[in-house]
Amino acid sequence: MDNNIKITYPSSEKVYMSGTLYPDLRVGMRRVRLTPTVDIVDGKKVMTDNAPVYVYDTSGPYSDPDVEIDLKRGLPKLRAPWIAKRKPGDTQMALAKRGVITEEMEYVAIRENMNCAELGIETHITPEFVRQEVAAGRAVIPANINHPEAEPMVIGTNFLVKINTNIGNSATTSGIDEEVEKAVWSCKWGGDTLMDLSTGDNIHETREWILRNCPVPVGTVPMYQAFEKVNGRAEDLTWEIFRDTLLEQCEQGVDYFTIHCGIRLKNVPLSQGRLTGMVSRGGSIISKWCMVHKEESFLYSHFDDICDICREYDVAISLGDGLRPGSIHDANDAAQFAELDTMGELVERAWAKDVQAFIEGPGHVPMQKIRANMDRQIEKCHGAPFYTLGPLVTDIAPGYDHITSAIGASMIGWYGTAMLCYVTPKEHLALPMKDDVRTGVVTYKIAAHAADIAKGHPGATIRDNALSKARYEFRWKDQFNLALDPERALEYYKTSNDVEGRYCTMCGPNFCAARISHSLKDCDQQ
Amino acid sequence: MDNNIKITYPSSEKVYMSGTLYPDLRVGMRRVRLTPTVDIVDGKKVMTDNAPVYVYDTSGPYSDPDVEIDLKRGLPKLRAPWIAKRKPGDTQMALAKRGVITEEMEYVAIRENMNCAELGIETHITPEFVRQEVAAGRAVIPANINHPEAEPMVIGTNFLVKINTNIGNSATTSGIDEEVEKAVWSCKWGGDTLMDLSTGDNIHETREWILRNCPVPVGTVPMYQAFEKVNGRAEDLTWEIFRDTLLEQCEQGVDYFTIHCGIRLKNVPLSQGRLTGMVSRGGSIISKWCMVHKEESFLYSHFDDICDICREYDVAISLGDGLRPGSIHDANDAAQFAELDTMGELVERAWAKDVQAFIEGPGHVPMQKIRANMDRQIEKCHGAPFYTLGPLVTDIAPGYDHITSAIGASMIGWYGTAMLCYVTPKEHLALPMKDDVRTGVVTYKIAAHAADIAKGHPGATIRDNALSKARYEFRWKDQFNLALDPERALEYYKTSNDVEGRYCTMCGPNFCAARISHSLKDCDQQ
Repeated sequence: MDNNIKITYPSSEKVYMSGTLYPDLRVGMRRVRLTPTVDIVDGKKVMTDNAPVYVYDTSGPYSDPDVEIDLKRGLPKLRAPWIAKRKPGDTQMALAKRGVITEEMEYVAIRENMNCAELGIETHITPEFVRQEVAAGRAVIPANINHPEAEPMVIGTNFLVKINTNIGNSATTSGIDEEVEKAVWSCKWGGDTLMDLSTGDNIHETREWILRNCPVPVGTVPMYQAFEKVNGRAEDLTWEIFRDTLLEQCEQGVDYFTIHCGIRLKNVPLSQGRLTGMVSRGGSIISKWCMVHKEESFLYSHFDDICDICREYDVAISLGDGLRPGSIHDANDAAQFAELDTMGELVERAWAKDVQAFIEGPGHVPMQKIRANMDRQIEKCHGAPFYTLGPLVTDIAPGYDHITSAIGASMIGWYGTAMLCYVTPKEHLALPMKDDVRTGVVTYKIAAHAADIAKGHPGATIRDNALSKARYEFRWKDQFNLALDPERALEYYKTSNDVEGRYCTMCGPNFCAARISHSLKDCDQQ
Repeated sequence: MDNNIKITYPSSEKVYMSGTLYPDLRVGMRRVRLTPTVDIVDGKKVMTDNAPVYVYDTSGPYSDPDVEIDLKRGLPKLRAPWIAKRKPGDTQMALAKRGVITEEMEYVAIRENMNCAELGIETHITPEFVRQEVAAGRAVIPANINHPEAEPMVIGTNFLVKINTNIGNSATTSGIDEEVEKAVWSCKWGGDTLMDLSTGDNIHETREWILRNCPVPVGTVPMYQAFEKVNGRAEDLTWEIFRDTLLEQCEQGVDYFTIHCGIRLKNVPLSQGRLTGMVSRGGSIISKWCMVHKEESFLYSHFDDICDICREYDVAISLGDGLRPGSIHDANDAAQFAELDTMGELVERAWAKDVQAFIEGPGHVPMQKIRANMDRQIEKCHGAPFYTLGPLVTDIAPGYDHITSAIGASMIGWYGTAMLCYVTPKEHLALPMKDDVRTGVVTYKIAAHAADIAKGHPGATIRDNALSKARYEFRWKDQFNLALDPERALEYYKTSNDVEGRYCTMCGPNFCAARISHSLKDCDQQ
């Protein structure tokens, strides 16, 4: 393993903004430098500066040339001094309800707004607004007290739409090195949180390496590890085994747990009439347990105990949707909605214990049924953040499911979903490799950003406008540097072009609409 | 050039359905054979057949093993006997208005419905319905009398959403061989129509090769060739040069012309306040002409003459949107909508002369502004089919603009757009190569299909359901064979799997939700 991974972006520098309530805060962001616009006026070159563009940055210390990275030592413990001051049970939600604006809350407010103030763009996102949203359960700041390396970020419908990337090995593939490398890689391209879905051997050790070196919150599905402990026999699971697994992962620093508490014994049979039954691993395991024992799931019956554990570490609960549809045929059916309604009950119980929580959603849903998902979630789950996987809007494109799902993800993000779980081109086919992670993350940045624009997030179009201006002015390098994936844009362009040119091979010199369009100005002046 | 290109699909055969009104019709489609479902009941293997799935097929004779392909001779002239019976001016629209159901109309009705009747699925699409839609201008069957090689297809909001692919060389790249190969390649993956946007040398010869060997309707932007004739000097263009170009292309067999007739002298200056001016090649050329001559565009002033020419050959007019926005910043602005309103006037004038017509649309439009485009188009253009390029919902992802645009394309397709012009990953960067064409077409098949499902097209979910059933039953080969891109699905799967397996590396054997879900059935029976 390369022990000193660094992340670089072209023509960019790492900058930090400080806080007002907490002047010592250093909120990292990326500033992209642009070249000037060159006009010819009366035969003379006139240069006009273009303001740098600030970009939300998930790469953490990896992109700071002043930080020495040592994977064996782990990242600097950014949040350690803040956490040191707090008492047991001081979750972000508990503090918010008591009227306390935490360091994390000011941090995420600054992070969401970037340089909007400087640009004169009004924003609704103040530290006090963040506090109110967290207090009301409409926003979550996943922040285990044992993961001080993570930079605070916020998940909620009134903030930037976030994306999660899944990594993790299975029994048959990949090692720890590869997973840590994928984690950093995901942060490079813009992943906001990371789920380690490892199964198989070395599950604890893999997670330890990831947590100590991950600048974004980390989620897991604790059931996977519990299931390994019973050698893959669902019926042998017990609450005690599961509880011990939770405690182990809380201690390590996992920031949120996907737990399929919403599966009720009475609802499991609802999946039997489906085209594709149950496609959630965690959901199918606990359902098997329920059916074998003819007993209510211990995840449901021990929900208050789960909350008590999570509260001690400020681990957020992601209520997993074990009954999500695995095909558009099964979308919005009784099984799915029964579980959603149960999750609505549970989220209020979590909040009563000051535990942060959000709700997972589908899956496979055709376009015309997406809105109903979002509306029902808002109604039944009292505004808790929604966290969806896609949804995929058709089933017929294995190999392209990053695209089938990005369509649904953009729409549901616009309608109010707070976080989108990425899907890679290998979905349904194989575990993603490094380049699949890149494609998946960039595709989901597109979906999230399209939703931010549609929702009118403050400053969401700054980067679009700067890039389009660069494009129209043939400032090719600026166009690439502002792109979500500068390397790929440059690579494609170079297949047949020269970066200094005033046209490209798409049209050739005579047919360039932008050139002709520019020349219309001269016609006006004649 | 390989003179005998063939197209094959795995586990598929070419089948033909015949007509009722015209029993000699042979409407080609692809039938995908599936393997049986295998269940273990009381310890015994029980096999249940899975019905074959019919797939809309754009590959023409290339996928028929009984047809000998010879690119030098061209494809069989399918429509020649139908055309031979008709009189000058007998456009599909003229005939439809007179109450005649043409061979083309019955052909497309069969093609849209596939085997719905056999499956007991109700459909609104009868030959008479097609006739009514064509008569009302709500549907177009592009069918130049000099392109008898093309298989009839229909473009209209009440039919399957179609996709167009652009190919064509520019002054700086690629030869004729490569373009013909790309044309066939596009048909293989599912392109419904093909625009030859060649510029530079050999424009006539390239088009001739494409037309004689293309089983789908071919469109062009005649202005490109006219512009070459005046050596790229917009101001030297004349109506006569343009008219002669139209006649030349009508004679060759082009099925539809994109003509930017909607640009009015008074509206050109509206583009000056934009972030990205004008990004349409044809639009910028005619705008330049208007501005230099301070005169109304000859495309507008000679619109009736254009219609008279198109009527003689039954060439459809695609009213080009020269003022489409080139950035989300410019979406839905005064320039764009002024042109749309003009196109609404023109389409009625085309219909008055029995000329089929449709309307081109944007471009770059953020999600929240897409619906307004569609609604305004329906209102101002009297139900004429809408044909959009994307739209791209964000500008920040060069290298991924097939995805940024597929999001918008799916939505606007759902809202009513009849045909989507594909965008490849190279958009804004370089001319697409063969693999970009494949990615672009498949991505747009996804968008169009997602829209068909959302609109409730008869039988639209048959393939989805069959594929999902295969997936859930571990019939991997069936899953791949039903995929839009079987080759890519198989390739990705093979990176780490065995095609015969009852699980995949995504989860490994123990964590496979589908396996566990299947086992729940046994729990029930205990």
